[in-house]
Amino acid sequence: MSGHLTIALDAMGGDLGPEAVIPGAALALSRNSDLRFMIFGDELKITPILEKFPKLSSASQIIHTDQFVSSEEKPGVALRNGRKSSMRLAINAVADKQADCIVSGGNTGALMVMAKMVLKCLPGIDRPAIASLLPTMGKETVMLDLGANLECDAAMLVQFAILGSVYSRVVRGHDQPTVGLLNIGSEDMKGHDEIKEAAAILQQIKFPGKYIGFVEGNDIPMGKVDVVVTDGFTGNVALKTAEGVSKLIAHMLKKSLKASPLAFLGAILAQKALKSLKNEMDPREYNGGMFLGVDGVCVKSHGGMDHVGFANAIQYASELAARNFNVRVAAEIAEVMIQEKELNILNAEQEPLKEKVS
Amino acid sequence: MSGHLTIALDAMGGDLGPEAVIPGAALALSRNSDLRFMIFGDELKITPILEKFPKLSSASQIIHTDQFVSSEEKPGVALRNGRKSSMRLAINAVADKQADCIVSGGNTGALMVMAKMVLKCLPGIDRPAIASLLPTMGKETVMLDLGANLECDAAMLVQFAILGSVYSRVVRGHDQPTVGLLNIGSEDMKGHDEIKEAAAILQQIKFPGKYIGFVEGNDIPMGKVDVVVTDGFTGNVALKTAEGVSKLIAHMLKKSLKASPLAFLGAILAQKALKSLKNEMDPREYNGGMFLGVDGVCVKSHGGMDHVGFANAIQYASELAARNFNVRVAAEIAEVMIQEKELNILNAEQEPLKEKVS
Repeated sequence: MSGHLTIALDAMGGDLGPEAVIPGAALALSRNSDLRFMIFGDELKITPILEKFPKLSSASQIIHTDQFVSSEEKPGVALRNGRKSSMRLAINAVADKQADCIVSGGNTGALMVMAKMVLKCLPGIDRPAIASLLPTMGKETVMLDLGANLECDAAMLVQFAILGSVYSRVVRGHDQPTVGLLNIGSEDMKGHDEIKEAAAILQQIKFPGKYIGFVEGNDIPMGKVDVVVTDGFTGNVALKTAEGVSKLIAHMLKKSLKASPLAFLGAILAQKALKSLKNEMDPREYNGGMFLGVDGVCVKSHGGMDHVGFANAIQYASELAARNFNVRVAAEIAEVMIQEKELNILNAEQEPLKEKVS
Repeated sequence: MSGHLTIALDAMGGDLGPEAVIPGAALALSRNSDLRFMIFGDELKITPILEKFPKLSSASQIIHTDQFVSSEEKPGVALRNGRKSSMRLAINAVADKQADCIVSGGNTGALMVMAKMVLKCLPGIDRPAIASLLPTMGKETVMLDLGANLECDAAMLVQFAILGSVYSRVVRGHDQPTVGLLNIGSEDMKGHDEIKEAAAILQQIKFPGKYIGFVEGNDIPMGKVDVVVTDGFTGNVALKTAEGVSKLIAHMLKKSLKASPLAFLGAILAQKALKSLKNEMDPREYNGGMFLGVDGVCVKSHGGMDHVGFANAIQYASELAARNFNVRVAAEIAEVMIQEKELNILNAEQEPLKEKVS
């Protein structure tokens, strides 16, 4: 590589489609001039927007297709009928090594099944999970799964714990990240059977993280652990609830500060501080869910994001690609598998983890 | 009744036990002098604290027991072995019409099984749910279940929708409250089978609320609907995540405002506004989960609450009791059941809702 990183973009994904994707790519390029783009989608819609960004235009190629995956489409249908869709072609570009990573704001389920089918899972992983960084009281926390797998058995949760730990190690530089299973109480007897089973396995195996037990919803923003593991349904609800609460508080803060002239004057004086807080909590700053466990860097942007959020998802994907993230994840997982064979610590009564993980 | 309302208190529940319960009762009494208390628990621990509050002391009777339910105890074990526990005796007082309602900060699971066993469910309800009010962008929203039932089938979710609607109608005065099922997308195809099934039923039956479809985590604080229906696991995680995010933002706001002298000055000027925001978002203001569907007013206070939070839970319970909440809920549910029989709108392919609801 010439120092360039090529990003495959699904221009038709997300609520705003090319209206967010193209200006987002322009913003990402202005931050990192080494980026190059393959833009997949409807040329007629892309070109007029792209023309407004001459620098981006000369760093990009458009690959036209008039097929795209709608947000209502069932993943299986998208997989069968969407072979020429912008999403699928963008994923193909990563599989064919034409691009270093792919970013899409489109249908999450379709993106997941396509990525899994085309890029395949890393050895040892059954089902990929969506992971993202979240702001906390301390360092940022990795949470997964955020919506790829609605129901997860114990073996999947254990795999997510391993994936999340490796991710935290590679991306956040934590040597031995702490891992918690999301539950509705910290006592051993609480929660679904899958969670209790996963806890029993994580207490026994050696993996790149350190399992510290159950965590509750309020422990996520407190930063109690480096990695929060949960099923995709719960993770998605928790993430979106957190976003909604941030918005609500910002709204109420604004209202309170406008309620009296004195408060308004105070707000003007504290403007800079309030703005830095706003930036710190901006969900656009945390946009970009990595498909952990897929053999290739595939990042999902939140469908409702504007160009600023989309630019952050591109930046996130390009950093992961630049750091050879997936090669490192694969190496770490292989090591876990070897250790497990050597240690042979799982007893017969348990879930046959090795069969599922390896 | 002489205009007095008698509250049965489980003095041993919650992280602080009588240290929060007794001062909390004193605070609630200072707000409403019509309250009377039956305080169940260890006299040796209760008396020294109660002595500090002479007014409360003369409005209370202590019913001594040295048994209590610990937070680690399994609900089934608590039910069998806790017949003389402070929690159980307090519930008995409601069943025996000695008290108008019960408040406990203790083991949620144990409180639920005991309340169900002793007070019984309202006709038509299989499983009670914990409901609470949450602050939103608009009016307050009712969310249930917040932790009583980890797994819920479609019929239970439908019952929760009915219970939540009646609750919203009676307590919040909404004529036809809007109801949403919590899911990870608003499209029909999203989510678990139970949710999709419940949606299909709610679209067909006539009940005191208006079913408007799926809602996502971010819709809760936005106040998109008056009633959010979900299973107890998801609801508990969403509620606690929301609490944690509030705390995180308050912490960051404080930090930002202290970061520069100018911001600090601004914060002093805006002090009153910031304090009113803090009060509005204070989780203690929203403390108190109602066990909807049990035949009696039973309110669960958050285990970690101090006396201010506990006082709010008492106030909440006493208001529900004063408004004859349960009688009205029972009447509304009976009406739903009659309508269903008349309409006979459920087709054979569906979950036999009437058998489960009625």
